[in-house]
Amino acid sequence: MKKIRVAVLGATGMIGQRFVQMLEDHPYFEIEGLYASERSDGKKLRDVLKVRDHVYKEETLDTKIETMDIDKIAKNARVAFSGIPSDLARKTESDLAEHGLAVFTNAGAHRMDKHVAILIPEVNSDHIKSIKDQSTYGNGGYIVTNANCSSTGIAPPLAAVRDAYGLNFVSVSTYQALSGAGYPGVASLDAVGNVIPFINGEEEKMESELAKMLGTYEKGAFNFAKFRVLANCARVPVIDGHLESLVIKMDSTPTVEELTATLDSFKGEPQSLKLPTAPLQPIIVRTENNRPQPALDVLAGAPDRAKGMAVTVGRIRKSDEYYKLFVLSHNTLRGGAGGSILNAELAKAKGLL
Amino acid sequence: MKKIRVAVLGATGMIGQRFVQMLEDHPYFEIEGLYASERSDGKKLRDVLKVRDHVYKEETLDTKIETMDIDKIAKNARVAFSGIPSDLARKTESDLAEHGLAVFTNAGAHRMDKHVAILIPEVNSDHIKSIKDQSTYGNGGYIVTNANCSSTGIAPPLAAVRDAYGLNFVSVSTYQALSGAGYPGVASLDAVGNVIPFINGEEEKMESELAKMLGTYEKGAFNFAKFRVLANCARVPVIDGHLESLVIKMDSTPTVEELTATLDSFKGEPQSLKLPTAPLQPIIVRTENNRPQPALDVLAGAPDRAKGMAVTVGRIRKSDEYYKLFVLSHNTLRGGAGGSILNAELAKAKGLL
Amino acid sequence: MKKIRVAVLGATGMIGQRFVQMLEDHPYFEIEGLYASERSDGKKLRDVLKVRDHVYKEETLDTKIETMDIDKIAKNARVAFSGIPSDLARKTESDLAEHGLAVFTNAGAHRMDKHVAILIPEVNSDHIKSIKDQSTYGNGGYIVTNANCSSTGIAPPLAAVRDAYGLNFVSVSTYQALSGAGYPGVASLDAVGNVIPFINGEEEKMESELAKMLGTYEKGAFNFAKFRVLANCARVPVIDGHLESLVIKMDSTPTVEELTATLDSFKGEPQSLKLPTAPLQPIIVRTENNRPQPALDVLAGAPDRAKGMAVTVGRIRKSDEYYKLFVLSHNTLRGGAGGSILNAELAKAKGLL
Amino acid sequence: MKKIRVAVLGATGMIGQRFVQMLEDHPYFEIEGLYASERSDGKKLRDVLKVRDHVYKEETLDTKIETMDIDKIAKNARVAFSGIPSDLARKTESDLAEHGLAVFTNAGAHRMDKHVAILIPEVNSDHIKSIKDQSTYGNGGYIVTNANCSSTGIAPPLAAVRDAYGLNFVSVSTYQALSGAGYPGVASLDAVGNVIPFINGEEEKMESELAKMLGTYEKGAFNFAKFRVLANCARVPVIDGHLESLVIKMDSTPTVEELTATLDSFKGEPQSLKLPTAPLQPIIVRTENNRPQPALDVLAGAPDRAKGMAVTVGRIRKSDEYYKLFVLSHNTLRGGAGGSILNAELAKAKGLL
Repeated sequence: MKKIRVAVLGATGMIGQRFVQMLEDHPYFEIEGLYASERSDGKKLRDVLKVRDHVYKEETLDTKIETMDIDKIAKNARVAFSGIPSDLARKTESDLAEHGLAVFTNAGAHRMDKHVAILIPEVNSDHIKSIKDQSTYGNGGYIVTNANCSSTGIAPPLAAVRDAYGLNFVSVSTYQALSGAGYPGVASLDAVGNVIPFINGEEEKMESELAKMLGTYEKGAFNFAKFRVLANCARVPVIDGHLESLVIKMDSTPTVEELTATLDSFKGEPQSLKLPTAPLQPIIVRTENNRPQPALDVLAGAPDRAKGMAVTVGRIRKSDEYYKLFVLSHNTLRGGAGGSILNAELAKAKGLL
Repeated sequence: MKKIRVAVLGATGMIGQRFVQMLEDHPYFEIEGLYASERSDGKKLRDVLKVRDHVYKEETLDTKIETMDIDKIAKNARVAFSGIPSDLARKTESDLAEHGLAVFTNAGAHRMDKHVAILIPEVNSDHIKSIKDQSTYGNGGYIVTNANCSSTGIAPPLAAVRDAYGLNFVSVSTYQALSGAGYPGVASLDAVGNVIPFINGEEEKMESELAKMLGTYEKGAFNFAKFRVLANCARVPVIDGHLESLVIKMDSTPTVEELTATLDSFKGEPQSLKLPTAPLQPIIVRTENNRPQPALDVLAGAPDRAKGMAVTVGRIRKSDEYYKLFVLSHNTLRGGAGGSILNAELAKAKGLL
Repeated sequence: MKKIRVAVLGATGMIGQRFVQMLEDHPYFEIEGLYASERSDGKKLRDVLKVRDHVYKEETLDTKIETMDIDKIAKNARVAFSGIPSDLARKTESDLAEHGLAVFTNAGAHRMDKHVAILIPEVNSDHIKSIKDQSTYGNGGYIVTNANCSSTGIAPPLAAVRDAYGLNFVSVSTYQALSGAGYPGVASLDAVGNVIPFINGEEEKMESELAKMLGTYEKGAFNFAKFRVLANCARVPVIDGHLESLVIKMDSTPTVEELTATLDSFKGEPQSLKLPTAPLQPIIVRTENNRPQPALDVLAGAPDRAKGMAVTVGRIRKSDEYYKLFVLSHNTLRGGAGGSILNAELAKAKGLL
Repeated sequence: MKKIRVAVLGATGMIGQRFVQMLEDHPYFEIEGLYASERSDGKKLRDVLKVRDHVYKEETLDTKIETMDIDKIAKNARVAFSGIPSDLARKTESDLAEHGLAVFTNAGAHRMDKHVAILIPEVNSDHIKSIKDQSTYGNGGYIVTNANCSSTGIAPPLAAVRDAYGLNFVSVSTYQALSGAGYPGVASLDAVGNVIPFINGEEEKMESELAKMLGTYEKGAFNFAKFRVLANCARVPVIDGHLESLVIKMDSTPTVEELTATLDSFKGEPQSLKLPTAPLQPIIVRTENNRPQPALDVLAGAPDRAKGMAVTVGRIRKSDEYYKLFVLSHNTLRGGAGGSILNAELAKAKGLL
């Protein structure tokens, strides 16, 4: 099978380099070029390395980064994976779609657009149909976004809960990793030995994105789900891995064992389609009393088929009609590059590529 | 005025050394001796130093630590400030009270005892009367505890809110500092670049201690307050300063400005009595969008009269009938040694010393 | 080919778990059992996980840990990989050798024994012959140690330099990772935002181990090399990766380019024998002005065939007859478990297993 | 006595705020205004707070920051304390001197100027006479610089050693704090769990500044001292406090006890003049085996009269003709603002203000 040629935008950044990591041996896609701003033109990936825990192939590290050029990308690639900043993404991604590219993006710029899905295939795979209503679809161009990293982590457990018991109240506090702020991002004098109880726009994003994702797309429009989300977002000195504490209230009151079973057995279309990047199990439930922990569970503690794409739930407790739990997700894999790659795999499986 | 002679128990530990820091120039109290386990007998404070941010007097650093000996302490001191571990504290503190000492302790061992108050003078100063019902009171001996560090931080804002608007729901997530676990406490391999979503017994303590403190003491018994507390506790790689995110629901729905004014103007008996360790203002409200932060606000960002004894509130937001805010407190000053010293000052002001 | 059965001792610790990581798919060896102290008997690897950056196979994470029992291990295994503490290692490892096991150990206990080699195959592969002079060799039992982690990192560059130019002066300062202290190791209150300028016995080890390794083994005795080593050792808040600054003086004065070429082209017996765990290149020279860095270069920045087994050299500078450089090595892979596995591979290649 | 009016330049930065901290209650100087770039005009100090460990007075935190304006500063102040970036400092500081201000600066811009001293009063107080050869001296204007932070820490011990024994070889490796890079400085993704073995220009500065400071100023020219300095500089994730490992060789070979006594008894003109900011003892020698540590010894572990202005030496070891030791200094107090304030105090004591 001939592989689909893809461009990676923002290759000097953390998300861009996670795209590269996940595309090194991808069965559907092959990297056509790495792109970034003019400033990095000609530099090798190894010179601007940000990722700490992946051992790239030597030829990958030697790949040269090129200046982003819409025409060139359009000529050479069918797909663009985008890890560029949101302000730059608005126009660039629209231009690429107009040039006929399928754009799978981590940027927030288009997430609230009328026909653009915020897609997590385990949660709302049917939303992908919205691309057919995008004006560029006739030329083969469209935009699909992955969710904000902190929304991504809790969306699968919330979807599982909603399906089984109904959902009406979510109070979430985040412990978000530094890599979520990009590079250079947070100054070290602000980060070391500190917590910053503010991430610009994040709480609003969590509230609106979850409502959009857990809602429906019908007759060309998204209908937002109705349940309350109260978010408190904070940055902690962790490199990768967003931890989130949840208090939820549902329409019924399962036992802790029932809720555990519901989460543990949750599956979605990526699992039934056996998409290459899909984790075997989207939600891993741990029963130790001190897990999940970012250091141990974003990668090492998860089964080898998960590779940063499963979310880990732990410490499920019940207090009358309220439930408390912690959720951990890899913010630059599941909540970033991996999310968009899984979206592209779904698109391919559905004949949209 | 002759100063009251006090013993500091647990002087090799973080809390013990915070006691020493706050007693260096205290107008009421003077240190009679520093005590710890036999292992440290004869060591100087400077050799076992744990506190990073206080510049001790040279003679303080040269003070030798002695083995804890009840009889000796009873002979030399009227007051014991205790920073020893809870398992050791149960018997030691009872013994000291039986020997006629007023024990002001950070240990949790006696917090739920029938006539022992968990005292935060701004919150429940009248609970101090419970000591008169302790069996040792006739000999001058009694025990007063300060609250758990994570309960301490949010008790003043919750008391202010309860007084003004009634209180019925609290969802709290903590970002707790490493010093709260004592020494050696958390292993560095677990702490660096990580968050641990579990602190043994902490969530239960928050729920029960807040109910006891915000309740009443009448006819020789504590009546616990009725409001729901849902706690998620986690440890973050910060040295000092517990940050806590709150979602609360009250009986009425003030504006953000009203709530801000209520918190900002909150005062208690330590302020009216002008106790030496009392902050001018127990609750400082910050209006910047990214504060309070442990690094900046446990000490530097607070007014100079606060010295770690005020709690800082920030990011007050309203979402219909729910309110979201962050609270920061110094866990080993306000939430530890400072809490007990303020308790002792209150006792003295009330003629109990 | 039938694989050789190996026992892993100290499987709850960091080094033990690095052994497990490297043995998961090893072409020569298969794990027969994981052993630790009684306290962990029956626990699964996943419950005591320490390694952050390796994704273990699910069946590996589910492996149960057993209590160390010499007879049992002797019955089931030909090789013991030992990651146990040095005080326990002295007797345990001798016992195992007496029971006929080939012991490849990270512990320091036997490093200075008369016929025990401190082996780094790229540096002193011929020292392996010392095992034939061990009293247990007749039964197939012997002990081979890997070097102390901080000695390991600089031994290959020093060997390369000695071979090419002669070596007479080394001043080394270390920036050592927390994982080098084992678990629980350094208290987080000592580690976060701090440097500890002392590691018990480390400076002495560096000086004696380098002299032993760079010396010769002739007529049943080790002759120590003569060159001066001045070591200053310090612990920094890094999880994995020992960085070391070097000032060296040699017998001749190559240009920086010549020295670079010498280091870059350095090869040893593991490379010529193509041992499975050997890096393609034992020394990687980086020419950027701000590398090597622990975060980037212990794993991610190295070629994919290195996997933590190459050391990275950077910032080579010349100041008259002195040369300055930084060296980085993975202290629990190259400087720990990986070192011993490479030693075992060499033993096998030489018919000693 | 009327206080001298001083301007603080760079008040939004770490050094600027250290100036403010040390000037809050200064017996000679009073702050006339806080200055920074236009971007911060009108902001209060509390809004841009960087310092973590000093409790400012409330009125200090409320002080408004103004845009730097040479004429205004010249009109209102006699002295400028400068914490502005080096590229901006070159012209600004020259302009101020031309307007008749005495400029005491932390910036490196003028350090190598012909008649500008790099002044550490304990080390080379007589160099202050160089200001009389500056062209602006007639108008009362001149520039005095403090040394680079990493040079500052080791200059006093090297001066003590030189005076007593002669000095001919220094190999120094630094463990430098993040605050040394200013704000925003190092990105947190580069800093957390990492060491960066490169600080632009730092090694060169150490070599040239130490030679200038330990040299002489005669007949209008600086004569640089002759001894070898080999520097390896690295950044570690510590907020404040530069630790440095030293290997030195002297003309004679004192015992460790003799060397200890020499360092411990070292005094300079600030001590004999009893300058207000001078530490009682410029060099504190610690004899524990694991000190000095940045966390404990830049502030807390030092005598209360030191307040960040003494350097701490520890782990003095002898290896034949070489000596090894660690030195710790507070990089933004002694090695920054405090250095320049002490310089200004010396100037005043000498009638130059």
